[in-house]
Amino acid sequence: MIGQRKILLSERDLPKKWYNIMHDLPKPVAPPLHPGTKQPAGPDDLKPIFPMGLIEQEVTTSEYIDIPEEVLDAYSLWRPTPLHRAYGLEKALGTPAKIYYKNESVSPAGSHKPNTAVAQAYYNRREGVKRLATETGAGQWGSALAFASSLFGIEVQVYMVRVSYDQKPYRKFLMQSWGADCVASPSNLTNTGRAALQANPDNPGSLGLAISEAVEDAAGRADTNYALGSVLNHVVIHQSIIGMESKQQLASINEYPDVVIGCAGGGSNFGGIAAPFVRDKISGKNVDVIAVEPSSCPTLTRGKFAYDFGDVAMMTPLLKMHTLGHGFMPPSIHAGGLRYHGMAPIVSAMMDQNLIRALAYHQNATFEAGILFAKTEGILPAPESTHAIKAAIDEALKAKQEGKSKVILFNLSGHGMFDLASYDKYLQKQLVDHEMPDSEIQKAIKELPVI
Amino acid sequence: MIGQRKILLSERDLPKKWYNIMHDLPKPVAPPLHPGTKQPAGPDDLKPIFPMGLIEQEVTTSEYIDIPEEVLDAYSLWRPTPLHRAYGLEKALGTPAKIYYKNESVSPAGSHKPNTAVAQAYYNRREGVKRLATETGAGQWGSALAFASSLFGIEVQVYMVRVSYDQKPYRKFLMQSWGADCVASPSNLTNTGRAALQANPDNPGSLGLAISEAVEDAAGRADTNYALGSVLNHVVIHQSIIGMESKQQLASINEYPDVVIGCAGGGSNFGGIAAPFVRDKISGKNVDVIAVEPSSCPTLTRGKFAYDFGDVAMMTPLLKMHTLGHGFMPPSIHAGGLRYHGMAPIVSAMMDQNLIRALAYHQNATFEAGILFAKTEGILPAPESTHAIKAAIDEALKAKQEGKSKVILFNLSGHGMFDLASYDKYLQKQLVDHEMPDSEIQKAIKELPVI
Repeated sequence: MIGQRKILLSERDLPKKWYNIMHDLPKPVAPPLHPGTKQPAGPDDLKPIFPMGLIEQEVTTSEYIDIPEEVLDAYSLWRPTPLHRAYGLEKALGTPAKIYYKNESVSPAGSHKPNTAVAQAYYNRREGVKRLATETGAGQWGSALAFASSLFGIEVQVYMVRVSYDQKPYRKFLMQSWGADCVASPSNLTNTGRAALQANPDNPGSLGLAISEAVEDAAGRADTNYALGSVLNHVVIHQSIIGMESKQQLASINEYPDVVIGCAGGGSNFGGIAAPFVRDKISGKNVDVIAVEPSSCPTLTRGKFAYDFGDVAMMTPLLKMHTLGHGFMPPSIHAGGLRYHGMAPIVSAMMDQNLIRALAYHQNATFEAGILFAKTEGILPAPESTHAIKAAIDEALKAKQEGKSKVILFNLSGHGMFDLASYDKYLQKQLVDHEMPDSEIQKAIKELPVI
Repeated sequence: MIGQRKILLSERDLPKKWYNIMHDLPKPVAPPLHPGTKQPAGPDDLKPIFPMGLIEQEVTTSEYIDIPEEVLDAYSLWRPTPLHRAYGLEKALGTPAKIYYKNESVSPAGSHKPNTAVAQAYYNRREGVKRLATETGAGQWGSALAFASSLFGIEVQVYMVRVSYDQKPYRKFLMQSWGADCVASPSNLTNTGRAALQANPDNPGSLGLAISEAVEDAAGRADTNYALGSVLNHVVIHQSIIGMESKQQLASINEYPDVVIGCAGGGSNFGGIAAPFVRDKISGKNVDVIAVEPSSCPTLTRGKFAYDFGDVAMMTPLLKMHTLGHGFMPPSIHAGGLRYHGMAPIVSAMMDQNLIRALAYHQNATFEAGILFAKTEGILPAPESTHAIKAAIDEALKAKQEGKSKVILFNLSGHGMFDLASYDKYLQKQLVDHEMPDSEIQKAIKELPVI
């Protein structure tokens, strides 16, 4: 046989604590600001929509946070996830580099999102919350929360962007199978939704509008909280389990990565795999940590590090982050996910402090990488994850050119079983690459709130 | 934590041999007959469409067959698969029974089918075959063969039943992503297809017709062979790895099952999990082995054990099997898979020799079991697999009633990520249960070929 393909951990080896990089960053992460007063937002500002357990994690600089038994128990349904050695991909590239990937696609929802969804469901239930409201675009986050909430006996109301609700019904059916209630946004359930429908009954919806509906729903009902699948500090902390397991798995075969790669949309899977390695870098270790984003939504590579709203409606707290402006929308031709206008404050701080670097790729190149991966490693990757694959391939080819051995680690954040229409478009050569013109970026940045 | 949920094996523990129950069955499996002469079919009859490596396996009574290195290597992409203890399901049922399930859904194609697909691709390539032709209904087998062939550098031509090709494009896109060529059947590529289209340009296709096209394609080209995803002896032998791993995993925690359950369509996943336990039963061990099928396609529970054709067009060899007649079609309302009119000769022989028993369930009951499983264990099961889940639940409830502890093992043959439209129909209460009238069965059996 070619060699050991999968490095496994037993459930006994599941990390018992999440790691919080805010403890180790040389400069602290800037606090969120109240959208009205623009003063630092305190727990009281967040209490109407988040449980105290998560609010505490949002602000703590403790190095570690104990993972509750119930969360570990839910994790053990699919964690620890396997770390794979990509022998097939290496052979196809003819590279001397060793490529490893962490396989987060094995979760019931098919991505890394359940790592935070089960934690959020747990803390909400612990504080007596009976119902969660959230938004979802294509449905990856909504289905993760539906899965997690079914384990903890919590109701879920998902506001799904109407155009996805109509055109991509399968994740909706998946959420419903786990017992969640999923409505098209704009909906008749909220003032925001009703106003939008009155203005235009055919409103196709947007993620910003869906966020506004979910927040209004949660703020207006005592039994209901809001849940967010990326960006926030507590989400990135929960995702640290990805990097912690990976490090443990590599250590078990006496490896340490020269390069660590993750794709970055809101920043949670990247922050999750990166955090334990960035910590080593802060301590002087030589490790190259790369966030990969789409050229059509180049938050880290071309956005500004500034305070901005998390949503179009300017209802959320202001976060200090790399942003293209809260009004930014990637062109509709973009099929590769990672569409968020901002980047998690923790990841943005890593970038600002030169602890990571960022790359942007066009979508045709990333789908090409995804197809090569599927043919050599078997798994059809999520379009988001193909960004990390493309960067790993380029690093491996550079190693080949330089005749250097090198250890590359990337995160396979999810599988592409719900993204086959996008693969079909790629194979039919219908995908167009799009580069944001400088003028557009300058215009968006000029409209950022003045703090 | 609740306890260890997953029993893992390392790649070192991958079984190195397939087990062949034909060595141990008290009465031999009847040989296939030539469709024209009705005399036992020899290697020469099969050589135009199968490689010798597989033809030998079709007839051998050797106890074990070495798994080639290259196949082990491909298996190691996802095997050994985890064995799960279903704590969540047990708790929901309040049963004293211990429920274990073998998780075959973790393969790249999402089911057990790649266990035989990689073996078939390997033996064909070893004998210089450059291209494989096959048929597929909803696409589970076609995508498994596309995946396997991409690893071994073989071209694949899939004939996909037109109605599925048009209504369920996602598995088609998946096959194409792995590089397979997928056409709607009837197609213009074969005489059979052209004749069918000439008679009716809107012909919706059928599995029988697609088989005929694939066999014609393979028989007519020197570089091309045919591949079948179930029923045949070599397929059931390849699937024995499911049962062998399961037995090893249970032994590692000092367990042995009282009950072993698998769903049965063509019989390959059932035969795979059952074989090593049926062998123990032949040696006197007390183990209850149950095949579960849909009431609307009750091959084992109500079919006749007789020689029949494998396809509608009566082109395949005659196989001795439990059959509803080669003209049988389950009603179109049936959403739960497992639609084949016959049953693998090996599984049929087990049934005939009283080594297993069979149950039939209506589809609404199986989807209900699938939803309970998704809410308690996370994974949304394939509709096929929900038949095994339903039987496991009933066994666990019986144990509860009797106040008995009991160890139940079932095979989770695949996930349901491509079957969400069927789950939606179930949730919308649009699925109708259908029981085959006795008169229909009697009529079908009367039309069986006279041997």
